[in-house]
Amino acid sequence: MTRKTTSDVAGRSTIRDVAARAGVSASTVSRVLGGDYPVSTSTRTRVMRAVRDLDYVADARAKAIAGAGTPTLAFVLDDITGPSFAHMAHGVEREATRLGHLSLVCSTDGDAERQLEFIEMMRAQRAAAVILVGGTADTTEYRERMARIADSLASAGSRLVLCGRPPLDPGTPVTVIEYDNESGAYALCAHLLAQGHRRVLFLGGKPSNTTAQGREQGYLAAHRARGVTADPALRLFGDFTRDSGHRLMRQALAQDLDFTAVMASTDMVASGALTALHEAGLSVPEDVSLVGYDDIPFARDLNPPLTTVHVPYEDLGRLAVRTALTRTPDAPDEHLLLGTHVVVRASVAPPPDTRQ
Amino acid sequence: MTRKTTSDVAGRSTIRDVAARAGVSASTVSRVLGGDYPVSTSTRTRVMRAVRDLDYVADARAKAIAGAGTPTLAFVLDDITGPSFAHMAHGVEREATRLGHLSLVCSTDGDAERQLEFIEMMRAQRAAAVILVGGTADTTEYRERMARIADSLASAGSRLVLCGRPPLDPGTPVTVIEYDNESGAYALCAHLLAQGHRRVLFLGGKPSNTTAQGREQGYLAAHRARGVTADPALRLFGDFTRDSGHRLMRQALAQDLDFTAVMASTDMVASGALTALHEAGLSVPEDVSLVGYDDIPFARDLNPPLTTVHVPYEDLGRLAVRTALTRTPDAPDEHLLLGTHVVVRASVAPPPDTRQ
Repeated sequence: MTRKTTSDVAGRSTIRDVAARAGVSASTVSRVLGGDYPVSTSTRTRVMRAVRDLDYVADARAKAIAGAGTPTLAFVLDDITGPSFAHMAHGVEREATRLGHLSLVCSTDGDAERQLEFIEMMRAQRAAAVILVGGTADTTEYRERMARIADSLASAGSRLVLCGRPPLDPGTPVTVIEYDNESGAYALCAHLLAQGHRRVLFLGGKPSNTTAQGREQGYLAAHRARGVTADPALRLFGDFTRDSGHRLMRQALAQDLDFTAVMASTDMVASGALTALHEAGLSVPEDVSLVGYDDIPFARDLNPPLTTVHVPYEDLGRLAVRTALTRTPDAPDEHLLLGTHVVVRASVAPPPDTRQ
Repeated sequence: MTRKTTSDVAGRSTIRDVAARAGVSASTVSRVLGGDYPVSTSTRTRVMRAVRDLDYVADARAKAIAGAGTPTLAFVLDDITGPSFAHMAHGVEREATRLGHLSLVCSTDGDAERQLEFIEMMRAQRAAAVILVGGTADTTEYRERMARIADSLASAGSRLVLCGRPPLDPGTPVTVIEYDNESGAYALCAHLLAQGHRRVLFLGGKPSNTTAQGREQGYLAAHRARGVTADPALRLFGDFTRDSGHRLMRQALAQDLDFTAVMASTDMVASGALTALHEAGLSVPEDVSLVGYDDIPFARDLNPPLTTVHVPYEDLGRLAVRTALTRTPDAPDEHLLLGTHVVVRASVAPPPDTRQ
């Protein structure tokens, strides 16, 4: 069957060509391509064959440009293997679906150039919002880059959302949703100090990372509030992974550092630290107390179950989407700060020398 | 600086406008936008500023249509919170970057319509490959849908890759990379039986899921090979999450089922099961032996560290990308089956009644 087709000004097949070839209406073609069911299998097969025969992809792409396809929303994270961000992504995805958007995730391994490429692509696609998550190094270069991205997205009708990151300069078109790292870490460290601990080993993240900084600030503030000196030798820095916790804990034990409790900057770090303690023949909490941060699901499956700070990651993801998609164009820029709370489980006890 | 710009027929800025404004060649602009490194930071900054000043996005979109932007690759998974798939996504992302592609992830929560919408979008973008991961219900409808998707992608110069899924009918343009669930489960269960266990509780996934089926088949085959009857009452079904493991284990204990070992169908399931055993006052492996499947990083942080089956998820992700991006158009369709191996840790011991 070779049928002369009409075409648009650029020489591309139109939806009417596809409909005519498949012997269905244009709206049926639209339903098939848009995933707007139900359409019978045989109809779908005919339509998709016509789409293929006429290389209708060109028009599908044109639709994507015009923003007539499923509206999208983009979520950018540094490390897809970090469970806390995965749960935030899950919240984003569920809320996006509820509001009729398809969410795309890009994991950039911390590479600013890849992040920019992805954002450019999402802007070209007229994504309704671009959500960047996780702490960052808060440099002048970073703020300038983010401001440019915020302006660029705003000019394309999109919206930049920063989640778990510090706000930008006033006037920048951005939605900021933070969770309070410092208060959470303060409450957690105060819990250890209240049990009688005076030498608390801190297993930190990257010193330049804003999330890591907030948690360290809370640790220090709790010491100050109690009038306890925080020995700088008890602060070790790595990153937020399980392997970092394992390595730093082994290092602390090898150096024979003097401590009775360990405050890990994430549950993943605590998980690796716990194994290092067990490997050294130490019991938690009998010999050493241990706390984490994030309350990821398996924190309660560690032995002992981990005392930690609950951060409502899935809710944060939902809130980021809802705030970005439901805002009116002239609304003021939002800056939300969400609270966290300590979840007490079984990994903390008074220090051994204070027990009867 | 207000400089009159030339523009294309549609009134948009061209790449030459951007080049002139940035004081670089058009090919440098192309390199910056295309992610074809190396370009110095100052050059990149100048080019991106010019792109922004001239609102070059219209042309960037036109480029995306022509397929001249950063080539992309799509990765589709059901549940972004499952750590095994997150590690596969990480492998995909790293290999894609190495080969000059940007990888986009879409998590569909198991929704076939969202999957289709995303695939249509990726096809329109001329993504080099679309990688679908994880087990599925292997129905006639599923095979027909996948065959249509494979054809549709192939006609757009893209490639469907199924990772951890069964192959489609011969002749379908698809790359299939499987890991051997049945052999892994066989070896794992044989390890339990060799220790003297005769009543092994199996905590399965969804009965219709191909991955769950493979693992159950391995469990049954190991029993047959040893001449041990597998009591159907000892097979419980849920899904692959931590909460499913916790719930099924509590159920088994409440029903007073008779077993000396537990074979969980994933490490996440084992993690929840371990907590339920501890909550019931049982010790692993002294009272009950426990094994998982997947060897996700924190399997070694459970107490006791978990005996499990190592699946090289990150390598699988890399291999999927490499196979799809480096194939020649007329190469035969690939079907690779990767092996797995048992990692023996400390969660298995002989049954209590056989010990002296």
